[in-house]
Amino acid sequence: MERIRIPRIMQETSKKLLYKSKSIGFVPTMGALHEGHLSLIRRARVENNIVVVSIFVNPLQFGPKEDFDAYPRPIDRDIEILQKEQTDILFMPDAALMYAEGFCTFVEVEGLSNKLCGAFRPGHFRGVATVVCKLLNIVKPTNLYLGQKDYQQAMIIKRLCDDLNIDTNVVICRTVREPDGLAMSSRNLYLNEAERKAAVVISKTLTHISDAIIKGRISCTEVPSMMHRLLREEPLVSEVQYAGIFDPHTFEPLTEYKRGNLLAIALKIGTIRLIDNMLVEIK
Amino acid sequence: MERIRIPRIMQETSKKLLYKSKSIGFVPTMGALHEGHLSLIRRARVENNIVVVSIFVNPLQFGPKEDFDAYPRPIDRDIEILQKEQTDILFMPDAALMYAEGFCTFVEVEGLSNKLCGAFRPGHFRGVATVVCKLLNIVKPTNLYLGQKDYQQAMIIKRLCDDLNIDTNVVICRTVREPDGLAMSSRNLYLNEAERKAAVVISKTLTHISDAIIKGRISCTEVPSMMHRLLREEPLVSEVQYAGIFDPHTFEPLTEYKRGNLLAIALKIGTIRLIDNMLVEIK
Repeated sequence: MERIRIPRIMQETSKKLLYKSKSIGFVPTMGALHEGHLSLIRRARVENNIVVVSIFVNPLQFGPKEDFDAYPRPIDRDIEILQKEQTDILFMPDAALMYAEGFCTFVEVEGLSNKLCGAFRPGHFRGVATVVCKLLNIVKPTNLYLGQKDYQQAMIIKRLCDDLNIDTNVVICRTVREPDGLAMSSRNLYLNEAERKAAVVISKTLTHISDAIIKGRISCTEVPSMMHRLLREEPLVSEVQYAGIFDPHTFEPLTEYKRGNLLAIALKIGTIRLIDNMLVEIK
Repeated sequence: MERIRIPRIMQETSKKLLYKSKSIGFVPTMGALHEGHLSLIRRARVENNIVVVSIFVNPLQFGPKEDFDAYPRPIDRDIEILQKEQTDILFMPDAALMYAEGFCTFVEVEGLSNKLCGAFRPGHFRGVATVVCKLLNIVKPTNLYLGQKDYQQAMIIKRLCDDLNIDTNVVICRTVREPDGLAMSSRNLYLNEAERKAAVVISKTLTHISDAIIKGRISCTEVPSMMHRLLREEPLVSEVQYAGIFDPHTFEPLTEYKRGNLLAIALKIGTIRLIDNMLVEIK
């Protein structure tokens, strides 16, 4: 596995690969790799000649009171994992190279960025869109692999690529879950034992509501209150930021079912913020 | 000369050229071509294997009260000129293909975009940065040619390329002038005979002040008032939006000379807005 720290060198490397007609599969991460990331890397491995994984904890997407400093950075373990997964290139840029002095250009996917998580994390998706635009220009991937767990992020990046004519195919992969249903997330590492057990309420609620919808047991307008009720039954849930049913393209709350429906939740267990979602198709 | 209207086809064409190791020189224009554009195209012709010129009157960079509809579009004449200049590809996309339904992604070079012209044309440079980002992703040029006449625009695009890791070399070419000194501009076509004669006050003021600075006859703090005075002597000048001496990188007004100094003017003659600038180096 080649390790590259300098954006210009990564860009030249990708250019040479493309000139040789190699396809590049790219998995951008903030490290602290888990099975969710590995599922993306494995799919990239199957579908491309070259697999590039980036590890970059992007300061631009963290709010001033968020967990940028505390974010887990188990870099030796991550490198070991990537080697096992036959990653070809690990791109691990320094923040000083990504945001040089005088940096002042930002990319914003308006309309999609201020809803759901965006309403609770101002500037977050602007930071995401900006860094992803940079990473795509550097790595020049044929295919980009993103997890459905960060559904809003994935849709924003898809829109960004379409709108700015970025020549990359966006592949959204299904959420990988722990045996009890909890969606894999680097932030799960923050949970203590009791919180970890309590966190299952999120996926349980999604599954329960999804079943009820498919079986026709609940009307669309009842969904949000039912979700809130189920989540509030878990005493360790300290705050429900949102829980409801949304249009999967506009993220507007739905009052009647559509063909595709997005159930989405963001909440805090203690001080730890967790998100999850499920797409429910009605036939 | 090949004419391409569909962004995807332009992008595929550029990709094939790059795979064959051809360099691409790109001159983005809004049409109504004049000698200023031709100087860019000729330089691109000398420095690249392939020359791509785009003609696209970008609605996103015009304000609601600006001249988008009235902007000159002498397309047959432009095509004839481009053929004479041995342009390889004319990229002339439809607005509906550049801004498809649901388009909502914008690029902003903050800090540089709200000064000088930006203060008088809110949203203008956001529109410029967004369309240039799109055009660069579509055309994938090795070299991008811009005129110094639109100095702020050129610096914003240079910053955009650096900040977003766009793999294009930005070449800023000197302003081409009419025999009497007026900077070439498509908007000069709007001027009637008297206005056209009056417009020479802009370049005369720039030259006069530049000479005075180089000869040490004027202090930095005197420059703006002297410029305003000279411009106001021309009765057809209806409004001076700005006239002064600025840092050529930050566009902040200068109170003492630096090594590089930007003299810049935006004014209206009748209802027609004109801009010009000059860089003054002090040794």
